[in-house]
Amino acid sequence: MQRTIKIVLAYDGADFAGWQIQLNRPTIQQALAAALERVIGEKVLPQGSGRTDAGVHALGQVASFSTQSPIPPCNLVIALNDVLPPAIRVLSAEQAPAAFHARHSAKSKIYRYRIWRSEICPPELARYVYHHPYPLKEEAIQRAAVTVIGEHDFTSFAAVDPEKVEVDTSNVRKIMLSKFERQGQELIYEVEGNGFLHHMVRNLVGTFLLVGKGSLEADDIEHILAARDRSAAGHTAPASGLWLVRVNY
Amino acid sequence: MQRTIKIVLAYDGADFAGWQIQLNRPTIQQALAAALERVIGEKVLPQGSGRTDAGVHALGQVASFSTQSPIPPCNLVIALNDVLPPAIRVLSAEQAPAAFHARHSAKSKIYRYRIWRSEICPPELARYVYHHPYPLKEEAIQRAAVTVIGEHDFTSFAAVDPEKVEVDTSNVRKIMLSKFERQGQELIYEVEGNGFLHHMVRNLVGTFLLVGKGSLEADDIEHILAARDRSAAGHTAPASGLWLVRVNY
Repeated sequence: MQRTIKIVLAYDGADFAGWQIQLNRPTIQQALAAALERVIGEKVLPQGSGRTDAGVHALGQVASFSTQSPIPPCNLVIALNDVLPPAIRVLSAEQAPAAFHARHSAKSKIYRYRIWRSEICPPELARYVYHHPYPLKEEAIQRAAVTVIGEHDFTSFAAVDPEKVEVDTSNVRKIMLSKFERQGQELIYEVEGNGFLHHMVRNLVGTFLLVGKGSLEADDIEHILAARDRSAAGHTAPASGLWLVRVNY
Repeated sequence: MQRTIKIVLAYDGADFAGWQIQLNRPTIQQALAAALERVIGEKVLPQGSGRTDAGVHALGQVASFSTQSPIPPCNLVIALNDVLPPAIRVLSAEQAPAAFHARHSAKSKIYRYRIWRSEICPPELARYVYHHPYPLKEEAIQRAAVTVIGEHDFTSFAAVDPEKVEVDTSNVRKIMLSKFERQGQELIYEVEGNGFLHHMVRNLVGTFLLVGKGSLEADDIEHILAARDRSAAGHTAPASGLWLVRVNY
């Protein structure tokens, strides 16, 4: 009997070329597919809730696949973690409805972007944050962040995606949460949306940082959105600071 | 004028073959020497307070070197961090008395060993802890740890060191602090001593873990010390969990 399995994954993306399988480069999807083949003896291609870029981390990426294997999901967690590298951990596995698909069924995703603010970034955090010790008007950043809440066309914050899986003519996405918070030496951005375009979170952060530097005003975000032009927004912030926190279904 | 400089370093040792310079392998000492050459334009070999093994980390390693360069120590911190990889950070630099030597002048060192106890080790901690989710009698471990406090011959806990720098006929060392502490999912060992033999902390931890498993009793540590025989003690615990915390002068 064919079953659909949903698994939740955490990973340290620093040493991977992102989620998606690529020729001769280590990726999360490839490592997971190889581990699944060893554990269930079947070639399956796990589908992620979305691709994460090279260097991007996950606390709760979701993947789904369909299998004939009768292995109980809780045993799957143990067996997969036994063969996966320590940089990838399966946190949970469960049988899902046949129609479940990690990407198509996703209702919203939460991302976090970690910015280390003090002069020296501890070596053990360097892989997991963006080190930005320069002066920032953090209140202005926070004011800018809330202006993207709601439904907007995010073309200005979307990279051209050469590997786009689906033809999707709309760049409109709905953002439910967008805020910055200080936690000690870290300035943390959290954003929840019903979907994200390629590089969208990193482009938002790069643009908010321009507001922090004073190169832009918080109110400019609105005009950047209206421009629907990638060149109107700021740089893409580095991958190291980005974490996929959770996918809601 | 020749000046002696003392620097304090933190590093993520996971991707290095330890402190000491080796041919064709990345080491902390080599990276620091290369950075110093770029910054002060002089070939100097920084002397560490001791060698850390491949995969061992530092929160406060100390190195010293002698230089003609007039660069102020605070500028040295900024300049070195600019050219060092993010896995190595210079935390401070100061001029020291001419006779200061990071190893010879050291009065005591503090090491920490981090053991992750729960079933799944978060990927971003895997490089920095030893994942040991199996049952342990933690109270027995703590009782065992305190038995090494004081002055003892630690031959049973010393690896044969092929690269030993100095001929030192004594394996007697004084331990001032030796304790385990739970912090959430981590079981943390802290030890302070006036010196440590090769692999000594990792061999102590490996042996304490045998007490935790019930293969040894806390009181057996005393007999293992008395045996002065490496084979009397337990395995060497993995390098990933070990941190050089501080060197006192």
